[in-house]
Amino acid sequence: MAGNSFGAQFRITTWGESHGPAIGVVVDGCPAGVVLSEEMIQLQLDRRRTGQSEITTQRKEPDRCRILSGVFDGVTTGTPINIQIENQDSKSSSYDSIRKAFRPGHADYTYLTKYGIRDHRGGGRASARETACRVAAGAVARAFLLRYGIDVFAHTVKIHDIAASKFDRFAIEKNDVRCADPDAATLMVERILAARKQGDSVGGVIEVLGFGVPAGLGEPVYDRFDADIAKALMSINAVKGVEIGAGFSAAALNGSQNNDPMRMKNGSPVFLSNNSGGIDGGITNGNTLVARIAVKPTPSILKEQMTVTSDGAETPISVEGRHDPCVVPRAVPVAEAMTLLVIADHYLRNRSARA
Amino acid sequence: MAGNSFGAQFRITTWGESHGPAIGVVVDGCPAGVVLSEEMIQLQLDRRRTGQSEITTQRKEPDRCRILSGVFDGVTTGTPINIQIENQDSKSSSYDSIRKAFRPGHADYTYLTKYGIRDHRGGGRASARETACRVAAGAVARAFLLRYGIDVFAHTVKIHDIAASKFDRFAIEKNDVRCADPDAATLMVERILAARKQGDSVGGVIEVLGFGVPAGLGEPVYDRFDADIAKALMSINAVKGVEIGAGFSAAALNGSQNNDPMRMKNGSPVFLSNNSGGIDGGITNGNTLVARIAVKPTPSILKEQMTVTSDGAETPISVEGRHDPCVVPRAVPVAEAMTLLVIADHYLRNRSARA
Amino acid sequence: MAGNSFGAQFRITTWGESHGPAIGVVVDGCPAGVVLSEEMIQLQLDRRRTGQSEITTQRKEPDRCRILSGVFDGVTTGTPINIQIENQDSKSSSYDSIRKAFRPGHADYTYLTKYGIRDHRGGGRASARETACRVAAGAVARAFLLRYGIDVFAHTVKIHDIAASKFDRFAIEKNDVRCADPDAATLMVERILAARKQGDSVGGVIEVLGFGVPAGLGEPVYDRFDADIAKALMSINAVKGVEIGAGFSAAALNGSQNNDPMRMKNGSPVFLSNNSGGIDGGITNGNTLVARIAVKPTPSILKEQMTVTSDGAETPISVEGRHDPCVVPRAVPVAEAMTLLVIADHYLRNRSARA
Amino acid sequence: MAGNSFGAQFRITTWGESHGPAIGVVVDGCPAGVVLSEEMIQLQLDRRRTGQSEITTQRKEPDRCRILSGVFDGVTTGTPINIQIENQDSKSSSYDSIRKAFRPGHADYTYLTKYGIRDHRGGGRASARETACRVAAGAVARAFLLRYGIDVFAHTVKIHDIAASKFDRFAIEKNDVRCADPDAATLMVERILAARKQGDSVGGVIEVLGFGVPAGLGEPVYDRFDADIAKALMSINAVKGVEIGAGFSAAALNGSQNNDPMRMKNGSPVFLSNNSGGIDGGITNGNTLVARIAVKPTPSILKEQMTVTSDGAETPISVEGRHDPCVVPRAVPVAEAMTLLVIADHYLRNRSARA
Repeated sequence: MAGNSFGAQFRITTWGESHGPAIGVVVDGCPAGVVLSEEMIQLQLDRRRTGQSEITTQRKEPDRCRILSGVFDGVTTGTPINIQIENQDSKSSSYDSIRKAFRPGHADYTYLTKYGIRDHRGGGRASARETACRVAAGAVARAFLLRYGIDVFAHTVKIHDIAASKFDRFAIEKNDVRCADPDAATLMVERILAARKQGDSVGGVIEVLGFGVPAGLGEPVYDRFDADIAKALMSINAVKGVEIGAGFSAAALNGSQNNDPMRMKNGSPVFLSNNSGGIDGGITNGNTLVARIAVKPTPSILKEQMTVTSDGAETPISVEGRHDPCVVPRAVPVAEAMTLLVIADHYLRNRSARA
Repeated sequence: MAGNSFGAQFRITTWGESHGPAIGVVVDGCPAGVVLSEEMIQLQLDRRRTGQSEITTQRKEPDRCRILSGVFDGVTTGTPINIQIENQDSKSSSYDSIRKAFRPGHADYTYLTKYGIRDHRGGGRASARETACRVAAGAVARAFLLRYGIDVFAHTVKIHDIAASKFDRFAIEKNDVRCADPDAATLMVERILAARKQGDSVGGVIEVLGFGVPAGLGEPVYDRFDADIAKALMSINAVKGVEIGAGFSAAALNGSQNNDPMRMKNGSPVFLSNNSGGIDGGITNGNTLVARIAVKPTPSILKEQMTVTSDGAETPISVEGRHDPCVVPRAVPVAEAMTLLVIADHYLRNRSARA
Repeated sequence: MAGNSFGAQFRITTWGESHGPAIGVVVDGCPAGVVLSEEMIQLQLDRRRTGQSEITTQRKEPDRCRILSGVFDGVTTGTPINIQIENQDSKSSSYDSIRKAFRPGHADYTYLTKYGIRDHRGGGRASARETACRVAAGAVARAFLLRYGIDVFAHTVKIHDIAASKFDRFAIEKNDVRCADPDAATLMVERILAARKQGDSVGGVIEVLGFGVPAGLGEPVYDRFDADIAKALMSINAVKGVEIGAGFSAAALNGSQNNDPMRMKNGSPVFLSNNSGGIDGGITNGNTLVARIAVKPTPSILKEQMTVTSDGAETPISVEGRHDPCVVPRAVPVAEAMTLLVIADHYLRNRSARA
Repeated sequence: MAGNSFGAQFRITTWGESHGPAIGVVVDGCPAGVVLSEEMIQLQLDRRRTGQSEITTQRKEPDRCRILSGVFDGVTTGTPINIQIENQDSKSSSYDSIRKAFRPGHADYTYLTKYGIRDHRGGGRASARETACRVAAGAVARAFLLRYGIDVFAHTVKIHDIAASKFDRFAIEKNDVRCADPDAATLMVERILAARKQGDSVGGVIEVLGFGVPAGLGEPVYDRFDADIAKALMSINAVKGVEIGAGFSAAALNGSQNNDPMRMKNGSPVFLSNNSGGIDGGITNGNTLVARIAVKPTPSILKEQMTVTSDGAETPISVEGRHDPCVVPRAVPVAEAMTLLVIADHYLRNRSARA
């Protein structure tokens, strides 16, 4: 089975290479009757877009989206929605030097090994440019989920070894790293710029939060909600770890500490803590959804590294081109998008739970 | 889409509840020509079985498997393989007290919310007993992958706050916690017994290693190898985090530290380090596969907790019954099994990569 | 992707060979809250069972079913339902003569070519015995659809060149060929017995009717309702053709004859004719569902035929064993079952049509 | 699960409405290394294109295709191939009269019933215009299968009640109805023109033949090769019946007539007849693949019919606009395309049959 689709019921298929004429996504399974416009999608694409600040790549892509199908009179019709984005500022010539050399930490070697051929220009299909399509699709999911009061956002909780220690939701979009702690944000930006000055890069950690996610989503025992969140988030370029709720720190707790006690409140069960991250037994429990991802430092660095070529030669490499010294801030809307897609998919799947 | 299947090409479907007459798994898509016997499956089931040591539950299930289809003259025929295990030592009466009360940290509340009905006996479908079926299916995958020299095993690297610091593969199966560091193993066992004495439980971390996994496995950009590993491992009961290679620690590295440099060795490319955990761009690179999972402390504890019932009453609860004070050691073969299933599935899917 | 599953949301997976210890089916995705008992399944299995009359095979299988999971207190729980049937009266020795010879019209040659190995005993997995599992699964779908007033039944409309010309629903189960025309039924039985006397066999045509199927089922443009019906029915052993509504005869009509005119009746649209068979544009229109299938004559005949062996020798063959001289009557409940499964699947999928 | 994808391994997803800005298809799972150009696709699109003769609609669509991804240096890379076709000659105003009225034999009523909204312009998604995307995808499958010597073509065997009685492959593309019998072709064209003169339409039957299809394709017991062919062909607009090999006529044969006897020839098994249509037990047997489909008469006719509107009023309707009086000739390349897609999909799936 080919791997460029995600979701069972609310299903997306993305296509396009970094330096081809365009990239796009087909959303199949979005219910009819959802109000959707290009503006709603553009709003999210603009958050992921490059060239927004001094800490992102200077490739200038307007990332202007067009809806080519599936929407009639401003409303989805239940038919596939194709959203397309032209590539405009691709400079393939910058990549001539890596036509043969495998950039360390990139997919150059693995794509060639797998397929016997690769589009080396800008990383081809392996480029993070593909994530624009995820964000576009996520905007459709967001439009669908809006009517149910579901609200998802993400923020940077760590860059390199600088961790956020305060949380102000309204601060997030006001700094270049999308951190809810403005003071930490300042240090994070400095750390990124310092890395870039050395021709190096840094990674970080993003937290995704989901409010209003109803209890009951998730299809045990394999398409559990947490399992699909893990897949969705791990499928994002550069992500090397995913944890839910207390995550890895739960491993060092006792059961009596980690269990979330329940009480009644206004006639409904509530949880006094949230180590579960809103998921018990693979099914959402109505508590806030909490997931975190580890993002590795951008592999494209100016600093010289040693590598090999497809001819079997060893060679030093210094990855030129226009790269983010830290992809974490731009990965924030991507993490949101993937989470929204999982929620939309399971929201629909859950409609089959009862006769 | 129903959620009890895993895998696209090498596909399993499990069925059965903790206290029903039997549990089982149908393996569909195992190629013809694989030598397979009940003994090969039993060997793995015995590793997961209860009652093996003082730190596991005292429920005594022989977990005797039977192959009911798909094997002829000792060889798989390409048709579905049904493997079945009878439940023998289920004591449903122990569960009468929780017919209405929601055990904290369990799926009682979420199953009832989702389906409007639940088999409360032993956790029903949400019981970790289901993982026996995963181990049985994993044994089939192991038999298939054996011929390609692929070798997967897992070991406990942390229990509560005690971490392993040495690695001796042959020590793993010689201690009750399946730790490759015999000294740490001793401390770990003590820690588990101490928790049990207090009516409490502990969690831990397991590492899975895959040797001989060929480069080229994984189907970008969604069915990436790492994304499917994340889903597979996160779908195991009690798992709250998954990381690949350097994982969360990669977030605090520079790109120049985290990138794995390549060199030529005997005419083939090799990596000088393995922060990638054997996966670049979602495709295996031929390096050792490395994944780690966080296992939460067993939610079933004797210590009294407060919770609510399906009638909306608040009640103290002390979870009786026969429970593992720490599920980590028994989760080791389950983590191996899920990893083997992902490899087998992608091994077959990769056969379509080239014309 | 392995091929032993059917359905996307209401999904079945069957397993088992004709002469293995048992056969069975896992139904995954049946909603919670459906009243289901072994009796309800047995009722349908008994209709497909052998040894019911002089025109069926004399293999005596009680086909006693057991539900091993997914039902609690007489109601489905939303978890996988495994239904199992033991094989009792298999006489594998009768098949020793065909260990090497390929029976004409059978799957012997194709299974061996595909898999390189085959379980020759009773046709192994290719045996029509597998259809018992379809009937069991269909009974679950029937139980689910019952609450929505959906009623599906099938009847024999042709055996060899004898066609039914009257329709009395209540006559169907009163004759051995399941024909709604009692007079034609008598001739049909004679024709079958005559064929058997000559060591030969005959085929026929079955019509499936669905009443109460709501408008709106079907997922264009590939998982159209008619496309899934075609797949479901063509997947039944011995079926070589499927038509919907006017079917092949529509090819010789004018548009003005074939179009079904609409009128209003009691405030709702109705159709004055039903050449569409209840499906327009791949979506049910609320009219009666009508499908017909062509069933080929049983390939197993006593009459001597020439064939080849897996050793490359030519040999005469006379297929001994206990075979139906005409499988049409026993295919009637199978055709119903497959139709019920398609309806149940699309009934659930349609729940995602609107936001 | 959304319904706009077809195929498990060689998988297509189509999008676009008749009167939207464009239509297209994403082919995911085409192996890397297939030589593919826009010309190869255009060649097939031109066969389906309108305005080719006096018997087709006068809507003039150049159907110029563009490959936007998945091909690099003239060769597929294993990544998704997006092929796009602009809509140019859509006259939406012709459809204002049917904004509310349901055209008999069309999907107007069913789409509105299902989704609560519909794009009425030109039939929206239900338009046969979507089949251009199938033809484009089929051209990719053809390019892939070419290297294995697989050759698929279709021809018209019946229009209304005029049947072909001769077979000259090279005659097919030389007449407007794509009939292999030039004399019958002349009569068929006359019949179509006569129908049009009366404001009416006619249907017909198409036969698809596949040469060089290797034995072993098909995944029993549900994704049988014949079952997937049935689904593929029944999913084409206006198709109401599918038969394989002897098809419905097999129902009136004896087993001794219908079975295809085997003999050895040059060391390989061959069949002396082909009532099976190249498929036994759901798996190809190496014989020529033979399938036939019944195509209903075009529902869009000028002749006045009675129908109802979405307001619940009864109204006469005369379907203006530019329509084919017979869609059979243009359905020929579509039937080929769907067959090629099934073969390509099963060709790849069969790579997993043996260890």
